[in-house]
Amino acid sequence: MDTLSEQRCFGGVQGIYSHVSRETGTPMRFSVFAPPAAGEGTVPVLWYLSGLTCTEENFTVKAGAQRYAAEHGIMLVAPDTSPRGAGIDGEDDDYDFGTGAGFYVDATEPPWDGNYRMYSYVTRELPELVFSRFPGDRDRQGITGHSMGGHGALTIGLRNPGTYGSISAFSPICAPMQCPWGRKALGGYLGEDRDAWKVHDATELIRAGALGREILVDQGDADDFLGEQLKPELLIAVCGEMGQPVNFRMQPGYDHSYHFVATFIGDHVRFHAERLKDD
Amino acid sequence: MDTLSEQRCFGGVQGIYSHVSRETGTPMRFSVFAPPAAGEGTVPVLWYLSGLTCTEENFTVKAGAQRYAAEHGIMLVAPDTSPRGAGIDGEDDDYDFGTGAGFYVDATEPPWDGNYRMYSYVTRELPELVFSRFPGDRDRQGITGHSMGGHGALTIGLRNPGTYGSISAFSPICAPMQCPWGRKALGGYLGEDRDAWKVHDATELIRAGALGREILVDQGDADDFLGEQLKPELLIAVCGEMGQPVNFRMQPGYDHSYHFVATFIGDHVRFHAERLKDD
Repeated sequence: MDTLSEQRCFGGVQGIYSHVSRETGTPMRFSVFAPPAAGEGTVPVLWYLSGLTCTEENFTVKAGAQRYAAEHGIMLVAPDTSPRGAGIDGEDDDYDFGTGAGFYVDATEPPWDGNYRMYSYVTRELPELVFSRFPGDRDRQGITGHSMGGHGALTIGLRNPGTYGSISAFSPICAPMQCPWGRKALGGYLGEDRDAWKVHDATELIRAGALGREILVDQGDADDFLGEQLKPELLIAVCGEMGQPVNFRMQPGYDHSYHFVATFIGDHVRFHAERLKDD
Repeated sequence: MDTLSEQRCFGGVQGIYSHVSRETGTPMRFSVFAPPAAGEGTVPVLWYLSGLTCTEENFTVKAGAQRYAAEHGIMLVAPDTSPRGAGIDGEDDDYDFGTGAGFYVDATEPPWDGNYRMYSYVTRELPELVFSRFPGDRDRQGITGHSMGGHGALTIGLRNPGTYGSISAFSPICAPMQCPWGRKALGGYLGEDRDAWKVHDATELIRAGALGREILVDQGDADDFLGEQLKPELLIAVCGEMGQPVNFRMQPGYDHSYHFVATFIGDHVRFHAERLKDD
């Protein structure tokens, strides 16, 4: 692991690191904010998964989450959103597939299956590295994310309740099997067998009984992607049917940007801190 | 004035606007955050001047100031740092002169004197525009900034005590006549007569008796530019000699980045809010 930068921030340390990933076969960058409390022992970890086109940097410089993480004594970890420079034909052609658009799945379709293994990267390889190098508490982890990363947080959290004690999301893709972004990604990475897609669709996971503690979701009602891509009404409906508690907050006037994330990240950090404190 | 974007943020509106400036002869962008309280009447205005290479965007997306401005009911205005695309030979050659490096002076040397009029732009033209379009209170203005913009905030604030009721700065260039950045800029824009430089040097202004209310200055002690370019010890010394109150805070471990600004911007917004409330 190489340290690309470490900077003092809200009394803690904001670092950017890189390593060569065995899952993706490429160098991968990630961001860790270690709060002041990390100097005195292990602290809970909140994973933040970013959206389409983002790197580890967007959340790190735009969300202002460090202030709240410092207050609550929580470590923040933000991975990149895909391999970069894998050398696959066409990997940089689209903003919503390939580079910057790993969708938090392990691809099974060639030519993506060798590198596009973001599910295993985010759930296994990166945690191993992070917990070996930083004072995060493996037994107190929460997960959140934005847009494609909100989809990642919901699906990864729901599938791994023993690992992630708290789940939240900002403007998540709630039902990827029923929107253009999701169908393109799941079809491209996983092939045409739709049964294989279901474990990467939060709405389908909940329908199949993957239930857990209350999930916090914030969504702006001025978000250009709301109707066509995000479809929170499908998630809300299945949560109601199945008895999955969800605190869904439609925020009037907010769009899909980091100004929206910055406005509500404080509530999310507190949400995770309160739940992880009990664990 | 054109509205390039307006986004909901902490209950207020974060906008980016452009207009063609009579002072610079070019299109100029600026950022305004109108807090929720701006819906009910005029609010105090805090001007933020950015550093070398920055645009109106850096502060807007990286500092996290909107949260505090919303809490205190203060409007934030962040101008760009120079004309762009003025068409002057060599304007883009250096990071510390020309584009992105206006230094908040009115150039008198050709070929810069036609466009590089950032002092008049920031102190007259932009305020006229802002107060005609936004519910800012002309009688309650504060000024702050970072690095080159800290120099701008100190010099503009000290020269216009009737306009700016509060002054603060992050890692300012404290004595531009005594550092490489400052000598290059002041010589290039104003020529070799050093007497003309003095009104653009905070240390010289205070030495000449331009005193005011307490100034708040934050500086990181891990800032790579501290010794050669920023020289706060010269400012502190002259403040002591002349009786100018200054709350200079050397912040251990912090560098010159926006992680530093983000950590302390809340203190600065509160500092200005408290002083402007009295006015």
